[in-house]
Amino acid sequence: MEQLLEKMNIEKPIIQAGMAGGITTPELVAAVSNAGALGTIGAGYMSPSSLKKTISEVKQRTDRPFAVNIFATNLEVFSTEIKEMQQLLNAYRKELGIEMGREQVKVKDYLQEKVYTVIKEKIPVVSTAFGVLSSLLIDRLKQRDVLLVGMATNLDEALLLQDAGYDFIVAQGYEAGGHRGTFNTDQYPDGCDISLNVLVQSFLENISLPVIAAGGIHAKEQIEGFLKQGASGVQLGTRFLMAKEAGTNDSYRRALVKADYGDTVITNVFSGRPARALGNRFINELEQSGIDRLPFPIQNELTKDIRAAGASYANAEVQSLWAGQGVGAIKEEETVEEIISSLFHQENIHLEKVDS
Amino acid sequence: MEQLLEKMNIEKPIIQAGMAGGITTPELVAAVSNAGALGTIGAGYMSPSSLKKTISEVKQRTDRPFAVNIFATNLEVFSTEIKEMQQLLNAYRKELGIEMGREQVKVKDYLQEKVYTVIKEKIPVVSTAFGVLSSLLIDRLKQRDVLLVGMATNLDEALLLQDAGYDFIVAQGYEAGGHRGTFNTDQYPDGCDISLNVLVQSFLENISLPVIAAGGIHAKEQIEGFLKQGASGVQLGTRFLMAKEAGTNDSYRRALVKADYGDTVITNVFSGRPARALGNRFINELEQSGIDRLPFPIQNELTKDIRAAGASYANAEVQSLWAGQGVGAIKEEETVEEIISSLFHQENIHLEKVDS
Repeated sequence: MEQLLEKMNIEKPIIQAGMAGGITTPELVAAVSNAGALGTIGAGYMSPSSLKKTISEVKQRTDRPFAVNIFATNLEVFSTEIKEMQQLLNAYRKELGIEMGREQVKVKDYLQEKVYTVIKEKIPVVSTAFGVLSSLLIDRLKQRDVLLVGMATNLDEALLLQDAGYDFIVAQGYEAGGHRGTFNTDQYPDGCDISLNVLVQSFLENISLPVIAAGGIHAKEQIEGFLKQGASGVQLGTRFLMAKEAGTNDSYRRALVKADYGDTVITNVFSGRPARALGNRFINELEQSGIDRLPFPIQNELTKDIRAAGASYANAEVQSLWAGQGVGAIKEEETVEEIISSLFHQENIHLEKVDS
Repeated sequence: MEQLLEKMNIEKPIIQAGMAGGITTPELVAAVSNAGALGTIGAGYMSPSSLKKTISEVKQRTDRPFAVNIFATNLEVFSTEIKEMQQLLNAYRKELGIEMGREQVKVKDYLQEKVYTVIKEKIPVVSTAFGVLSSLLIDRLKQRDVLLVGMATNLDEALLLQDAGYDFIVAQGYEAGGHRGTFNTDQYPDGCDISLNVLVQSFLENISLPVIAAGGIHAKEQIEGFLKQGASGVQLGTRFLMAKEAGTNDSYRRALVKADYGDTVITNVFSGRPARALGNRFINELEQSGIDRLPFPIQNELTKDIRAAGASYANAEVQSLWAGQGVGAIKEEETVEEIISSLFHQENIHLEKVDS
């Protein structure tokens, strides 16, 4: 733990997950960093200019370090084979009163540009999901002493990240909300399903990098348990969804408060990649349609307008309600400061030091 | 933890899971108890007479307390609708050179008789899976001060066990090997899938009974982590499968050593109930057959001869190779004494006392 605190220059071994899609407002990221933990901008789907703008807005609110999360996978696609899925989705568009879907879809990949933005803005930590950055980008980042945090859902992925020169590994357990970080979704269509307790142990026994535990963590006791097991820190997403500072919309928040521990499912209907979300009508109907989802990120692009309309119209049944299995414990909105102070007391550091 | 040690009169907060089907030999159970942990006879499928015999063989080998595990569900069935499944299974029987399957199947339920055996033999701990014992049986057991340990895979089940008068709850996480303890498999066809770290926390926050963590645990660090989180003890199955004293057959052992963390799947092809096992040909083919599995325990009865022949002929591809996700860490055979001493040192007790 001390290594993580020292290298990242933070006081508490807690990382706010880089949730993409408008959740990680500058207010959220800055508040987490101001509370002594590590805030993270979820820049996976951002353009370089909106990343730049967000970074500047975070910097206006904190002098503490924060991270940027990007997708270490190619997003560039141009697809014409989307007719069948668009027909299915147009029924939702009609119901929501929004424009019908286009016949072609294009997604630009700005990975290089975003990495250069990160370097130019002197961001100290970059975290990635879905794969390993190219050696070119890794070299550039390391030349500027940017710390690299890679997410892995099995031991093979962790070893690839370690070999590539990453500095920390996030062990993402089966219980985690949002996208499974699994690299090869042809091999694991639902994402790799190893639980956090087993995953952390397998990393501790087989890799030399510090391990950050992620998935289903929402309480102090869980954090103490994983630190005791040997993790260097933890990463939380779902708990921060309910922060007053987060960009989570109101109907999403209501669904989170209502949800029980067993109410999440893993689905690829929203983005083409497996992800854990609260079950709802959109998932049920698309799963039952028998129509194949398009690959990531095309499916994500196709469902974007519907999910946005769901958010605008407070209709939780057609949104992607990402949530981890710990969602059952989420009962109310809190400020980031309240969340962080309930998760970690400074005394824990001393306890850990005595123990080890 | 102290409460568990004191009530169960054991020295180490480790319970050997009551794995059914010949694994829990008297040698295994006695060795675990002699090492200061709690051995358990897996009596789920046993007749009262073989339970009585096994108890007496354990008693010859240890004076320490041990437990008996039974199924808190009705096993009594008499089925005639098995033709289609028998046809499918007969192909395996032909290949293995064993007798073709019968046209009818009968299973006797000896739950009451086994409970009376337990009482008569003054067994101090009874653990159950799949449900809650009847109030009649609970009363009888409690009148004789038998401790009741109930397995739960979600909070609703834990609350049912608590309300019924159980003394301890085993939180069985998604990562656990063998049968999912889930009560209602109509509601959860694959068993409830909540990971251990989340499950333990939800029990700690919502029930008042001591919690025993089970699933994927194979290392000292995991045990220390769960004790730190607040669990009173742990239950391990897979790690004991490789004990020299266990009844695990040789081809099963070889498969365990070879297996990686990601090699387990949840399937109901062996018994009609969801259970975690190493993937093999029998699972793949039956899952792909499109033929519905018969309800537990009929499917178990139907596949029994094939699995037994697989064991005799060292054919791991047609056996039920139950294993938890921690199987990736299993590398060699050890004695029970080696296993227990690698999992828990007496100093841990003092550490825990200082911490709390």
